Amino acid sequence: MVVTDPAITEGYRQDRALDPSAGKPLAVVRPLTTEQVQTVMRWASAHRVPVVPRGAGSGLSGGATALDNGIVLSTEKMRDITVDPVTRTAVCQPGLFNAEVKKAAAKYGLWYPPDPSSFEICSIGGNIATNAGGLCCVKYGVTTDYVMGLQVVLADGTAVRLGGPRLKDVAGLSLTKLFVGSEGTLGIVTEITLRLLPKQNRSSTVVANFPTVDAATSAVLGVSGQMRPSMLEFMDAVAINAVEDKLRMGLDRDAAALLLAGSDERGHSAAEDAARIAEAFGQNGATDVFTTDDPDEGEAFVAARRFAIPAVEAKGTLLLEDVGVPLPRLGDLVGGVERIAAQREVMISVIAHAGDGNTHPLIVFDPSDAAMADRAQLAFGEIMDLAVGLGGTITGEHGVGRLKRPWLANQLGPEAMELNRRIKAALDPDGILNPGAAI
Amino acid sequence: MVVTDPAITEGYRQDRALDPSAGKPLAVVRPLTTEQVQTVMRWASAHRVPVVPRGAGSGLSGGATALDNGIVLSTEKMRDITVDPVTRTAVCQPGLFNAEVKKAAAKYGLWYPPDPSSFEICSIGGNIATNAGGLCCVKYGVTTDYVMGLQVVLADGTAVRLGGPRLKDVAGLSLTKLFVGSEGTLGIVTEITLRLLPKQNRSSTVVANFPTVDAATSAVLGVSGQMRPSMLEFMDAVAINAVEDKLRMGLDRDAAALLLAGSDERGHSAAEDAARIAEAFGQNGATDVFTTDDPDEGEAFVAARRFAIPAVEAKGTLLLEDVGVPLPRLGDLVGGVERIAAQREVMISVIAHAGDGNTHPLIVFDPSDAAMADRAQLAFGEIMDLAVGLGGTITGEHGVGRLKRPWLANQLGPEAMELNRRIKAALDPDGILNPGAAI
Repeated sequence: MVVTDPAITEGYRQDRALDPSAGKPLAVVRPLTTEQVQTVMRWASAHRVPVVPRGAGSGLSGGATALDNGIVLSTEKMRDITVDPVTRTAVCQPGLFNAEVKKAAAKYGLWYPPDPSSFEICSIGGNIATNAGGLCCVKYGVTTDYVMGLQVVLADGTAVRLGGPRLKDVAGLSLTKLFVGSEGTLGIVTEITLRLLPKQNRSSTVVANFPTVDAATSAVLGVSGQMRPSMLEFMDAVAINAVEDKLRMGLDRDAAALLLAGSDERGHSAAEDAARIAEAFGQNGATDVFTTDDPDEGEAFVAARRFAIPAVEAKGTLLLEDVGVPLPRLGDLVGGVERIAAQREVMISVIAHAGDGNTHPLIVFDPSDAAMADRAQLAFGEIMDLAVGLGGTITGEHGVGRLKRPWLANQLGPEAMELNRRIKAALDPDGILNPGAAI
Repeated sequence: MVVTDPAITEGYRQDRALDPSAGKPLAVVRPLTTEQVQTVMRWASAHRVPVVPRGAGSGLSGGATALDNGIVLSTEKMRDITVDPVTRTAVCQPGLFNAEVKKAAAKYGLWYPPDPSSFEICSIGGNIATNAGGLCCVKYGVTTDYVMGLQVVLADGTAVRLGGPRLKDVAGLSLTKLFVGSEGTLGIVTEITLRLLPKQNRSSTVVANFPTVDAATSAVLGVSGQMRPSMLEFMDAVAINAVEDKLRMGLDRDAAALLLAGSDERGHSAAEDAARIAEAFGQNGATDVFTTDDPDEGEAFVAARRFAIPAVEAKGTLLLEDVGVPLPRLGDLVGGVERIAAQREVMISVIAHAGDGNTHPLIVFDPSDAAMADRAQLAFGEIMDLAVGLGGTITGEHGVGRLKRPWLANQLGPEAMELNRRIKAALDPDGILNPGAAI
């Protein structure tokens, strides 16, 4: 369970945020059971050794950055799952990939909706730590909406069961919900009870090109004001071209923006919705609109959208943003990011879960150019300031981690920050759980 | 704002739970604004005077029972609401009735789903305090699923904004969710940002009679295992007859149980679902099954179901239960309640949000018969013990309040109880917010 070989522990120093300040951990522990997690936490608590919980290491905010003289507690070997089709629930351990949870549910004709783009390489425990989102969340909600119960191990090693397979339960405070999104700062999740849905219906898909970004963001409001699409995604010209460079699927390289929308309503209703989406896109200036009822054709576009981050990454090192705004401010946010890119002379590509107002500006820079790297860092902060100024959030689905922590107080304000600190102090008085992350 | 006239304060001593231990408050305060709530809490905090927050007084667990020498803070005059159709959100004050929120949303073709049976007389602030449920929650979730942001006033008078009109936001701990369901023990909610949906589709409705309770609970599993109905309600023979006594709508007085189900899928799909529900009911022994696509006809049955509590109340004083179990144990719960009724020689009628596994056993007793009242109290506790023994909860949607507090530890266990206490102590160290309620 305990690994101290530096050749191995080296691989646990960073997550996908590649935080340059990552330390060298004393050890990596890879427990199999709740009891083993308790043993680790009792030892860490007795010796006041910081513990960084780690899922699959796919986090984008440095929530799993290792600390000098700390422990990395990896849940990667905790991989059991049981699905109960009668209650439509799954009980699983945190180390399973999101895709494996989906697959286990699918065996029973059931569906676990939350679908981060990284679903094949991110763990369900990490999804809970960040309250992860994804593409279908515009209709189906985020991770917290599917978490019915948790077993957590607290800083002192106490194991606590919260919630369970009860569809409604208001006994005691909503502690299950408090732990979702807590980024490993309140406890270690060792077991999860998930709510599942019947399998998703076939989707109809609409793809449209827009001559301006403003036309595309207006079209988003034109759709969301009248219906609930099951997907409503945005890619700017940089992302379109980066994807087309790699996939050669015939995307329009001259478009300023692309919107990708879907409906999974039953029967004819999906095609009806697709027609309404196409109409709203057209009314807002789409230059061409393509609609398909073929799931494979639709999935090709979804795969292209998911591929946008790796495609843009081919152009340089990324600083990956995750800011969100109330939906009517989406155009202001994307426009503001363009201005920051021009001012700081860095390439910034914007992709977005547009229907949620949640954008991922991808700041591209050359790390060997120190001045450019500095400008990229300035842009990173300015984008968060912009979002907060528009009534938005510094993180919609990736979490605060270590990379965004300096900006958190600006969003929450002193009263809410103090409330966060009081909860943290009440649950982890010695501050050994993921210190420096999130709060 | 401050009322001390005993003729008026008398009306604020109890909620619908009619807790006999209710005290005589020093004063009732009826603030209009967040600032006035802050003034009250600063004064109460300085003088260590307990404050009982109160919505519309429709609570069923004694969460708003007044305390001797305490203050009752009624939010009844805080009644503003603004609906934004673009973001599909509403910002409102806590004193509005649930029905008024629905009505304000409906003006824009929007819908606020949670629908406690008391929706015409319960406040949205009270709904948040208890994380209230209702009939459509089997498909649409409970109150917490619609709360995007809150303004709360803490025990010391600090006002804090949590969340807001952002569909995805993971910055900081999930404090909005922590306050939902906290029954006024952590702070006073003074403003709420609600998520709204496009208006509900027309529903198809299925009503069926069953010769045994077991047949009906099996039929519930037969439906929920294959689809998501928008309603799946249960009434036992006592409730059927009590409703029929009052409404004379032709319910089958000889049936052991009635199930009422609905589908609001789009277009033909609702009728298709109704046919599948009817088939599942038939396969599980329904003696007659009635299906209608007429919304008015369907609504008549929904109104009958909502009328069940007042109808049974005509037979005596009620102790109103709210226990829930994982869905496969529903039959065991209803059967166990029958045995408790026989053993304690009291009438207990069971109605249920069956699709959620959330039941309302209604214990009927004559308060002038002290022995019977004692037996009713024993049955009340035994039903909670039964539910917890079946892996269930002592409260699915009404809250713990004061009536159920002695049973909470039995459900949560010592570790989760301690965690509740630590959070409470961190936010309200002097214990002035709704002491004696919930936790």
